[in-house]
Amino acid sequence: MANTHRKKRLKLGASIYPVGYHVAGWRYPGAQVDGGISLQHHVDLAQAAERGGFDFIFLADAAVIWDQNIDAVARTAWSTRFEPLTLLSALAMVTKRVGLVATVSTTYNEPYTVARKFASLDHLSGGRAGWNLVTSAAEAEAQNFNLDRHLAHADRYKRAREFVEVVTGLWDGWSDDAFLFDQQSGIYFDPAKLNILNHHGTYFSVKGPLNIPRPPQGYPVMVQAGLSDDGRELAAETAEVLFTAQPTLPDARAYYADVKARMVKYDRSPDSLNIMPGVVTVIGRSRAEAQEQEARLRSLTHPAPGLAFLSGLIGAFDLSHHPLDGPLPELPPTNGPKGRQRLLVEVARREKLTLRDLYLNIAMTSGHRLVSGTPEDIADQLEDWFVNEGCDGYNVAPPYLPGGFDDFVNLVVPHLQKRGLVRTEYEGVTLRENLGLPRPAARSHIKVSAAE
Amino acid sequence: MANTHRKKRLKLGASIYPVGYHVAGWRYPGAQVDGGISLQHHVDLAQAAERGGFDFIFLADAAVIWDQNIDAVARTAWSTRFEPLTLLSALAMVTKRVGLVATVSTTYNEPYTVARKFASLDHLSGGRAGWNLVTSAAEAEAQNFNLDRHLAHADRYKRAREFVEVVTGLWDGWSDDAFLFDQQSGIYFDPAKLNILNHHGTYFSVKGPLNIPRPPQGYPVMVQAGLSDDGRELAAETAEVLFTAQPTLPDARAYYADVKARMVKYDRSPDSLNIMPGVVTVIGRSRAEAQEQEARLRSLTHPAPGLAFLSGLIGAFDLSHHPLDGPLPELPPTNGPKGRQRLLVEVARREKLTLRDLYLNIAMTSGHRLVSGTPEDIADQLEDWFVNEGCDGYNVAPPYLPGGFDDFVNLVVPHLQKRGLVRTEYEGVTLRENLGLPRPAARSHIKVSAAE
Repeated sequence: MANTHRKKRLKLGASIYPVGYHVAGWRYPGAQVDGGISLQHHVDLAQAAERGGFDFIFLADAAVIWDQNIDAVARTAWSTRFEPLTLLSALAMVTKRVGLVATVSTTYNEPYTVARKFASLDHLSGGRAGWNLVTSAAEAEAQNFNLDRHLAHADRYKRAREFVEVVTGLWDGWSDDAFLFDQQSGIYFDPAKLNILNHHGTYFSVKGPLNIPRPPQGYPVMVQAGLSDDGRELAAETAEVLFTAQPTLPDARAYYADVKARMVKYDRSPDSLNIMPGVVTVIGRSRAEAQEQEARLRSLTHPAPGLAFLSGLIGAFDLSHHPLDGPLPELPPTNGPKGRQRLLVEVARREKLTLRDLYLNIAMTSGHRLVSGTPEDIADQLEDWFVNEGCDGYNVAPPYLPGGFDDFVNLVVPHLQKRGLVRTEYEGVTLRENLGLPRPAARSHIKVSAAE
Repeated sequence: MANTHRKKRLKLGASIYPVGYHVAGWRYPGAQVDGGISLQHHVDLAQAAERGGFDFIFLADAAVIWDQNIDAVARTAWSTRFEPLTLLSALAMVTKRVGLVATVSTTYNEPYTVARKFASLDHLSGGRAGWNLVTSAAEAEAQNFNLDRHLAHADRYKRAREFVEVVTGLWDGWSDDAFLFDQQSGIYFDPAKLNILNHHGTYFSVKGPLNIPRPPQGYPVMVQAGLSDDGRELAAETAEVLFTAQPTLPDARAYYADVKARMVKYDRSPDSLNIMPGVVTVIGRSRAEAQEQEARLRSLTHPAPGLAFLSGLIGAFDLSHHPLDGPLPELPPTNGPKGRQRLLVEVARREKLTLRDLYLNIAMTSGHRLVSGTPEDIADQLEDWFVNEGCDGYNVAPPYLPGGFDDFVNLVVPHLQKRGLVRTEYEGVTLRENLGLPRPAARSHIKVSAAE
């Protein structure tokens, strides 16, 4: 077994936006155009991630098409994807070690259902499940769930906090040793090892128990993506992996220091949270080739989805009537992802970007860091933030698939392995073990308090 | 290719109650005691079903442990199971033709979520998904979903009818040819082929569309289990497979004739609904061996889960204080599964059963038909109801697993194949094709009416 697990290793997630992270990635030569509903495409990507020693693959999600402007949507591949928990259950069968992280919203689901599905995936996969908790950002998603308008930002986070309490309480409903399977005595489980939750809170009343034993990992790994103040606080309290969009190292360092500092008041060690900014990777055999790729992706980007995407990230503010070669107009406050809006506006002002510059950038990166160049350049850039306390690892988002990801695994990973930054063999079996996270002990349910 | 598909063939479902259908099945020698969370156990069963030419495997489900009497529950294996949609997504990867039917309740889920998950399973499996629609029978399930009490029976069925309307409307949101994947023009889908649902009804407001294309089968196969008047009517209108509990051929014939007659007013052909009663199968190399198996299962049945199971089926009426060797007491009306209660009471009166007789019978069959004997005896009994218009096929429920199912596939199926009643090769690719059901065309959404 390799000894890389004794060194500090950067964590890697593979963000599988089915046909690539770039708005026009599906138009890139060689892209799997129908990737969103191609099982084989996902099998190949998951197996490539495992070959590359990735900690996990990650599926973003929302229960809505990505924008209400149908002409813009019709020019992207994002109207089409598998539902994450069904897809990851299938992928569990063709992989052995890579973690399986699904996005599920606390705003439009019930905690009993979510607790049960993740417990099921964790059992199916031998302890490889992770839950990316989101509170849902799109107004339109509400309209698929009997509501005219989205829940207010603060309410979503209060609900999310109580949701997590219920879900983890349900996971703890059965002690790890509750099941005896004793044919002779006829006792299947020990009733003394069952803790009925009986939660009665502000948003939820849930009795329990789950009809599935405690997950192999205790809890599936808890993933979040908070940029806002509410989001950072919830992450500091409950997250074990944190996705974030950080365009520059100073931004990343400030965010990293802030979130890790917030963990103290929850009695958590900084090592128990892995902060993993997204990186969009453009990999060339030469720097010129990487630049050509970037130019090609820009040339394939139609203004309609570019503007719609930009508009969605800054709070559903309609930009279509503003001149493309003028500056970003003043924006009203958003009920969507607050942190993302602030970040984008700051960058636009600082770098004096036109609307066209901005949508082309955003089409490429969604506000994430772009790393571009030769495989060695990319490895340098990834190492730089890691050693300078900008992050604990990366969520790798190739602009087009599968080529963009294959290049990362085949060309960049070997450089990272040579530097001891990426494993050559998995150290453990479960996602927790591979991320170096402790397995939480089951709490007993003397009293589960409601969200404040 | 075999020509059995030209004859009228009986349909077969495999009801995988993880450790067997019998209350004490998990105690039977050789039973997979931890089957509820053993993936390999389910892989073996699904592959055996496919080897036996089964139309589908079927997973019953409820989002609750099966009874609130913990000492009774602790003596069964039913507190432990995978969540069906995650499990079937995994099993889709290790099977090629067998259908995958999951139970999902319309009472504690949202139609957008359900439509999406089944569409995802249907795409993942190449068109093998089926949805067993239930309205949930257990009072206790409500308490896992923020309610003190269960929705009333009639309200559940009104909600279910509107739920189906929304779900099928969402599946029809994209025309079959909506997606162009045209890299050259940059048009991913044709906006003219998208029909926004905009449903505003009594129970649901759902805009749509789904973020996944129309399922390969158009709609996953629609399965139900209605015995009550409401249940029969909903099935006559919308079901394609109908599970039922029928203890005798006259009962089965009456039910069969009634439901098929109800289909006329919905303009449906009787062939478009497969009525498949459950059969619990006890298979011996000799009749004496089968009787020994029955006796062994009875001897393994503790009164606590026996009575709790009986009580659950007749509407959560507590039987624990009544003498075991006296008759079934008078019962109050139930808000649970009405049809099942009536049937059990009729049988008890007719056959003058004591409470002990009744719970031992119920522990064995849950009110379903018991077929017992040699493989040839079983084949005779299955053929009998089929040729006498008692059914279109069977939902096979072995009392213990995997042995009880392996015996069916290895010993009984060859007899059924010899008689031309079971296929030797799958005729089609999708579950619909193998069941001989038409693929529904997408409706356009001029107007989707609310439930009446």
